[in-house]
Amino acid sequence: MSLAIISPGRDPKIWIEALTFCDPDVDIQVYPDIQKPEEVEMALLWQHPPGYLDSLPNLKLISSLGAGVDHILSDPSIPDTLPIVRIVDEKLTWSMTNYVVMGVLNFHRQITRYQADQKRKVWDMSNPEIPVSVGVMGVGALGGDVLDKLNYMGFRVSGYGFSEKNDFAYPYFSKNRLQEFLDEINVLVCLLPLTRDTENILNLDFFKKCKPGTFLINVARGKHLVEVDLIPALDQGYISGALLDVYRTEPLPGDHPFWEESRIQLTPHIASVTNPQAAAPQIVENFKRMKSNQRLLNLVNRQRGY
Amino acid sequence: MSLAIISPGRDPKIWIEALTFCDPDVDIQVYPDIQKPEEVEMALLWQHPPGYLDSLPNLKLISSLGAGVDHILSDPSIPDTLPIVRIVDEKLTWSMTNYVVMGVLNFHRQITRYQADQKRKVWDMSNPEIPVSVGVMGVGALGGDVLDKLNYMGFRVSGYGFSEKNDFAYPYFSKNRLQEFLDEINVLVCLLPLTRDTENILNLDFFKKCKPGTFLINVARGKHLVEVDLIPALDQGYISGALLDVYRTEPLPGDHPFWEESRIQLTPHIASVTNPQAAAPQIVENFKRMKSNQRLLNLVNRQRGY
Repeated sequence: MSLAIISPGRDPKIWIEALTFCDPDVDIQVYPDIQKPEEVEMALLWQHPPGYLDSLPNLKLISSLGAGVDHILSDPSIPDTLPIVRIVDEKLTWSMTNYVVMGVLNFHRQITRYQADQKRKVWDMSNPEIPVSVGVMGVGALGGDVLDKLNYMGFRVSGYGFSEKNDFAYPYFSKNRLQEFLDEINVLVCLLPLTRDTENILNLDFFKKCKPGTFLINVARGKHLVEVDLIPALDQGYISGALLDVYRTEPLPGDHPFWEESRIQLTPHIASVTNPQAAAPQIVENFKRMKSNQRLLNLVNRQRGY
Repeated sequence: MSLAIISPGRDPKIWIEALTFCDPDVDIQVYPDIQKPEEVEMALLWQHPPGYLDSLPNLKLISSLGAGVDHILSDPSIPDTLPIVRIVDEKLTWSMTNYVVMGVLNFHRQITRYQADQKRKVWDMSNPEIPVSVGVMGVGALGGDVLDKLNYMGFRVSGYGFSEKNDFAYPYFSKNRLQEFLDEINVLVCLLPLTRDTENILNLDFFKKCKPGTFLINVARGKHLVEVDLIPALDQGYISGALLDVYRTEPLPGDHPFWEESRIQLTPHIASVTNPQAAAPQIVENFKRMKSNQRLLNLVNRQRGY
């Protein structure tokens, strides 16, 4: 009875160390070197080869190696009956929030303006702050923490999501109230899960609904953004700038126009990187729960897609 | 009986509007056009000409137009018996904290590294976070709020100050425990008041006591920093970078080496700008308290210097 790591192109060593630290008895096989596929009961996936799980006849549980499961749900060969869990990690939440707050503050306090002024040796004290009202799309564990931290810091915040919510701690707008939500805000943070409903949601039609000059922060998935629409949205003033951490193709191709666009700041998918030390206990716990038929932690609802 | 604004080189209009909004009956005279000096009972000062207050025979109270009073205490002609008050403004605190948190996050998440990577079209996901432990020198209204916000965000924080403190909410190091304080931290925030004790405190000897690679944020006064010592401290690795908002001479002279130093980020004294709308009620209240001999708000202790 073993656990398989299927994460092509990434070094599995830190995962093996962290899992073995939690449970020295756990048997781990690593793709592509899976010698006894019939023994694999749980698979840890990050961008696995679609269809590969068919070769694991006794698979009972899938875990994502991160918070997102879009890379799993996009493989139609995976049986509907197989439960999928994902990582919910405080450290992951902490990093994500810090990244987003950094982006909000850099827009609010105009860091790029002062960097340009320094280069030109310009001393300009006028209008040091852009007033901001921050909207977070996707108010799960990650979005909720961003709202909490920005609210504590004294910023106006609002949330947007596809489900109805009662008694939400902050102003909240569900699915059909997108225009109301966008009218409230001038910093837009995308933390949505990637589903059929949310793919390509950030497109030119969407940007036209934003208040002129809205600043975009995308830390969810590259496929949320129709990338060819962003530069026109900047040129037309719907969006004043963007901080992006995720892209439709990663690494971002060398000839992509985003690299040279000064209104867009790029980071290489590092807003929040799953920490094996923090995630391993959840994986080992779910492995045990699966074997004893207990309720799984962080179980994904396939209908919702997260 | 009137109030004088003595703030050469700055437009007094927004101050007059804000004060008149609070008390339409208040009589305001503005330097250098003070026609009836004998009627001035309260003076609002920002970088007044030293000695000028000698011409106001019935002056009973001085208010700074900001949080700092170093510009007042440095004028030896002001009688010791004259009370001095200063502005404590939540908006001022809010702006200061946002600026400092921005500086901490930009160091922690290496914004300048990713900006440089974008220019060179480099995709490097390694080591996305520099672990930080933040030390705040000066734990009054401003420093205390910085500590609260960073603590809420989950960062390790410590405070340092010249007075003893019992039951302080965070690890606190008083005067003689500087080395212990510096051993705890790798981001140093200077929010000290400017006094004889703190002038020039940030010098090469001080930097040599810091953990190698400490990041400096100075948002207090230019005279806290011995500016000629900073580039040597960077070259020798005691300090890895700095975010500065204040300088010994402001505006920063065009030939100052800081402008062209990529390890130093400059802003033009905009971290926290006193907001007349927020400050005027305190000034008018102190004017009334002075006239009715009540206890003054935000009275400065001249021995301490703040």
